[in-house]
Amino acid sequence: MEVPDVDTLLDKVVAIRPGASHRTVVEGVTPAVDGGTVPARRVAGDTVLVEAVVFAEGMEEVGAELAVRQEGHQEVVRSPMVSLGNDRFRGSFDVPETGLYRFTVRGWVDPLASWRARAMKWATAGALSAADLAEGAELLDQESRRQRGAGGKARYEASQELVRLSATPEAATEFALDVTRSWLFRTRPGRGTSVTTFRPDLAVAVDPPSARSSAWYELFPRSASVVKGRSGNFRDLDPWVERIADLGFDVLYLPPIHPIGHTHRKGRNNATEAGPDDPGSPWAIGSELGGHTAIDPGLGTFEEFRALVARARERGVDIALDLAFQCSPDHPWVREHPEWFHHRPDGTIRTAENPPKQYEDLYPLDFHCREWRSLWLELYGVVEFWITQGVRRFRVDNPHTKPFPFWEWLLKKVRKNHPEVTFLAEAFTRPPQMYQLAKIGFTHSYTYFAWRSGREELISYFGELGGTELREYFRPHLWPNTPDILTEELQTGGLPTFATRFVLASTLSSNYGIYGPLFEEGEFAAIAPGKEEYRDSEKYQLRHWELRPRPLDDLIRCVNAARRESPALTALNEVVFHPVDNPHLIAYSRSLPDGSNPILVVVNLDPHHVQSGWTDLRLDHLGLGGDESYDVHDLLTERTWRWHGNRNFVELRPQGFPAHVLRVERIGIATGVGPKSD
Amino acid sequence: MEVPDVDTLLDKVVAIRPGASHRTVVEGVTPAVDGGTVPARRVAGDTVLVEAVVFAEGMEEVGAELAVRQEGHQEVVRSPMVSLGNDRFRGSFDVPETGLYRFTVRGWVDPLASWRARAMKWATAGALSAADLAEGAELLDQESRRQRGAGGKARYEASQELVRLSATPEAATEFALDVTRSWLFRTRPGRGTSVTTFRPDLAVAVDPPSARSSAWYELFPRSASVVKGRSGNFRDLDPWVERIADLGFDVLYLPPIHPIGHTHRKGRNNATEAGPDDPGSPWAIGSELGGHTAIDPGLGTFEEFRALVARARERGVDIALDLAFQCSPDHPWVREHPEWFHHRPDGTIRTAENPPKQYEDLYPLDFHCREWRSLWLELYGVVEFWITQGVRRFRVDNPHTKPFPFWEWLLKKVRKNHPEVTFLAEAFTRPPQMYQLAKIGFTHSYTYFAWRSGREELISYFGELGGTELREYFRPHLWPNTPDILTEELQTGGLPTFATRFVLASTLSSNYGIYGPLFEEGEFAAIAPGKEEYRDSEKYQLRHWELRPRPLDDLIRCVNAARRESPALTALNEVVFHPVDNPHLIAYSRSLPDGSNPILVVVNLDPHHVQSGWTDLRLDHLGLGGDESYDVHDLLTERTWRWHGNRNFVELRPQGFPAHVLRVERIGIATGVGPKSD
Repeated sequence: MEVPDVDTLLDKVVAIRPGASHRTVVEGVTPAVDGGTVPARRVAGDTVLVEAVVFAEGMEEVGAELAVRQEGHQEVVRSPMVSLGNDRFRGSFDVPETGLYRFTVRGWVDPLASWRARAMKWATAGALSAADLAEGAELLDQESRRQRGAGGKARYEASQELVRLSATPEAATEFALDVTRSWLFRTRPGRGTSVTTFRPDLAVAVDPPSARSSAWYELFPRSASVVKGRSGNFRDLDPWVERIADLGFDVLYLPPIHPIGHTHRKGRNNATEAGPDDPGSPWAIGSELGGHTAIDPGLGTFEEFRALVARARERGVDIALDLAFQCSPDHPWVREHPEWFHHRPDGTIRTAENPPKQYEDLYPLDFHCREWRSLWLELYGVVEFWITQGVRRFRVDNPHTKPFPFWEWLLKKVRKNHPEVTFLAEAFTRPPQMYQLAKIGFTHSYTYFAWRSGREELISYFGELGGTELREYFRPHLWPNTPDILTEELQTGGLPTFATRFVLASTLSSNYGIYGPLFEEGEFAAIAPGKEEYRDSEKYQLRHWELRPRPLDDLIRCVNAARRESPALTALNEVVFHPVDNPHLIAYSRSLPDGSNPILVVVNLDPHHVQSGWTDLRLDHLGLGGDESYDVHDLLTERTWRWHGNRNFVELRPQGFPAHVLRVERIGIATGVGPKSD
Repeated sequence: MEVPDVDTLLDKVVAIRPGASHRTVVEGVTPAVDGGTVPARRVAGDTVLVEAVVFAEGMEEVGAELAVRQEGHQEVVRSPMVSLGNDRFRGSFDVPETGLYRFTVRGWVDPLASWRARAMKWATAGALSAADLAEGAELLDQESRRQRGAGGKARYEASQELVRLSATPEAATEFALDVTRSWLFRTRPGRGTSVTTFRPDLAVAVDPPSARSSAWYELFPRSASVVKGRSGNFRDLDPWVERIADLGFDVLYLPPIHPIGHTHRKGRNNATEAGPDDPGSPWAIGSELGGHTAIDPGLGTFEEFRALVARARERGVDIALDLAFQCSPDHPWVREHPEWFHHRPDGTIRTAENPPKQYEDLYPLDFHCREWRSLWLELYGVVEFWITQGVRRFRVDNPHTKPFPFWEWLLKKVRKNHPEVTFLAEAFTRPPQMYQLAKIGFTHSYTYFAWRSGREELISYFGELGGTELREYFRPHLWPNTPDILTEELQTGGLPTFATRFVLASTLSSNYGIYGPLFEEGEFAAIAPGKEEYRDSEKYQLRHWELRPRPLDDLIRCVNAARRESPALTALNEVVFHPVDNPHLIAYSRSLPDGSNPILVVVNLDPHHVQSGWTDLRLDHLGLGGDESYDVHDLLTERTWRWHGNRNFVELRPQGFPAHVLRVERIGIATGVGPKSD
């Protein structure tokens, strides 16, 4: 008997609401962000795990499959999902390329599987009847006509065999329930099957592999001169690239490299008046020498810039530029495009502000002006321009003060031609704004990490960042310091605090950065008590950083090396915290999605004293059984300890390496002969 | 300057994805179930609280409003939402009638409010400039032209006044920032404003007031005879209605009242063979005397049934009937509509089953048969038929074994003409199926409550039922026993356990029921060890229940009286658990959404011993300050104690009333002179 397509017919016969229930229910499909209106984010090369709840009425067995379509392609790729029990199904698909993949889950009632599940129960009860067996044969026969080729043929033959064996029910039962034949008892959905497709379609946005992990180093090129007193230039950066690569960083981020305005130029320590030799803030972009597509002549030429980009890349270091979409009053756009700025009734342009702070050296752009289209296109052109110069990583200054649709449009437009380009959002703002920028396409985001100190604060904050939906699209980029942020903790804790904050930043997230060389030097002088700005900040004056080893170099080199050899530390994965009985010690672990490469980090948060304590490890998160010995190998010191169970002793000094970065190794796993506990 | 509608223009100029970001973001709108695809459920007379996160870029101020449309009406009712800070907004709308209400949230950038917020900051810093004030005047002037009537006029005048005062900035500032004028600095969205409307629309399904709370009493009418040995009938139920009303119940639920089949009729204690006088299970519906629209002649006539319904209603008791959509082999449909049943290849009809159990006295209906339309319409007709007889509450037997679209269609169709009718789903099945029935329209649902014993199990289960999304649509109906469920706990705990389970059922949820009079008698004899069926169950044989007081009557009467006088116990609200230092004691409280009428329940879960302990009350959930004395008045015993703070002593015996149902009363609140702590 043919099964009518109840859903389709029903929609015609009776008026029920759009999205009314189907015989088969498909719900709870993950990953989904904001009810599926926002794509989850992954990296090219990832495998996306999809889960769903699929069921129908009563004891009906259901089948489920994933349907995936890459944007720009016609083909829909379908793959079966497997049952996890409790109505849950799991499937997966690979995302080898950047771009958007749309997916959904389809579910249907499977009469053959339902028959077999029922037959198994009756057979177990010793009461599978001839009528039941005949029904199985008929269902097989029906399915054989719906499937072409080998599948159809095998089902037809099985159906005939069942009929043949019907005289000997025991033999027929054995034949039908033989586990090697279970694949025959699966119905492919087709015509006459009521299939439920989950709506709306969900999506995964796939970023380039460079989005997965990065260690950034921020450096003012003008401070990199080999000669004290003159501005450093691109050629002076060569030895710095060597140093940065040697320390294990893979991105060198330069603050804006454009000509700096004269009008209301800021002086040393953010003074309202600049002295005659003060260079001004690099973020006050634009002068008579040009704007966002010009280079400050003191730094060098385009040719020298391109050479720097090329040489750095040879050493494995990407040059990242700053996108600060604002203008000094001397920027060419102010003269050429007054319509892009907000004029007050008295004809003046309002300067940038954050009351009571006034930035007299900066005009904001008016993204909502009447001529917004030409402005937006010009800004898009700026990004294209620098990509042509070889740049493929951008740090975006205060993106949250510009409209969200602008960024969504720009990022999409850039990626269409340059999928390898990534954007880091510097949005120290309210959480909804910060997260919205990630939703509309920023690759990475600065976070509140700099201000989260103490064990409870860290656990709570990384609990939030690891929340079910947030971790699907928001990639935290951790910075212990920036030119604007020298936290009170760093001002007061001395070198051990710098070391601790470095280990936290570089192991709590796959993406992090430091503003150097002040950081690895342990520079802690603020402009004033209670302020977070650096004293004598190079934002406003020329500084001179000598090329020499610095106190934290060893630690940085070792941690970056540990990151490179530990896929778990550079994957976008969950951070699991483990109890320690001393509140000055924090312990956490990360592993690959399949549980492999477990890395356990223990950090001493006290900059003044040796701290020791006993762990209470969550062994299941380390791939360990409850009563098992295992080795922990410190990737920083190359020392190994044999541990047992969840309680183990740790002791860390604040000086030197105030942390363990431990690779957890089950004993004998390499040879396959070790104990395996459950 | 006019603000262009950026979103609209942008959609035309550049190709961005559907649902692309808008300047104003509206997200996290609640209540929403399954991303808005399933309506939240409320009761007529409720006020629906709506919250949303609304923001734009930078420091822009936004406005938000609720837009609500009742299904079947054209008018969209808009109401402003108020800011709660942190980008959160709240609004509300009333749902006075049953049916569907659709709602959404609209958000927009408010230039006037943004100007004023900025001006406040500059004024505080003593630096609000004349240019700023002129800008405010201009924005007011613009808005005055967009608003008709008084609002426009007032803004125009304020604009003129600001211009007049511009020579004296101090006076102008005072004028603009005067708190009594803040309403002027609100922009109504209109033409030229980019407004973001949250999509998809969300919905609230509104049930009749009778859905809010109910206390059910299940009784087999055939056991209610005044003469032992003959079947009870509808007239015999009169004194039982008196009793039930006196105990405080408001629903009398009768198992199926239809003619019972003969073929494979079950005998005493579910024997395969029935004796000549065995009446059979009322769920084996249908004989030569009729089917689902007939009455078993032993019970009485339609006239007598209608009289029972009317008399019960006079006493405040609704008669609820059972919808068991299945047939005995003797049901007229088997003969008249063989196409509604599933025939196996050998021509036989498969009986109902749950391997290894076989229900030979029952044929399931085939809801997916070729003639499903006529079947579904016939079943709909059954419901309409009994509504015509005065029934307005139905208990639905095993709805999860019938297709979900069937129920969605039927419930919607019934409600269209009879919005007052409610449906209780008896679906002891996997959670997704149980919850799906609530999503598609069942008013109430049986739960796993009967099997949740012990404090941790109860707290965990009611935590799940109170989960953010679930509590928006799923109304638990708690039954400590049913004709099929005599739990091991009840079999072994004696009367104190019956008392405890009664208090839990009747105070943990606004809807509950008992299967009596076995329950209030404390009947604990099961058919066999390890089984949950009653011995000599009246499902299969005639029993005779005398009309007389029973051991739990007092407790039941007192608790139902406490429910009637305590709106918090009959509202669909959260259950908050409070720590007690003795694991045998469980404490929980419920209050109205505005925090009023806090009721604290403490129950002794130990049926054998007196238990005492100290509470650690979560005072904020009881509307109390940290260091406050207050009275707790036991609604069961009318005793009052004066308590202080969170730690208070409780002691409960298992006998008699093993629980306190305490109304928490702040001292002096009635006269308004008492202490008020924060």
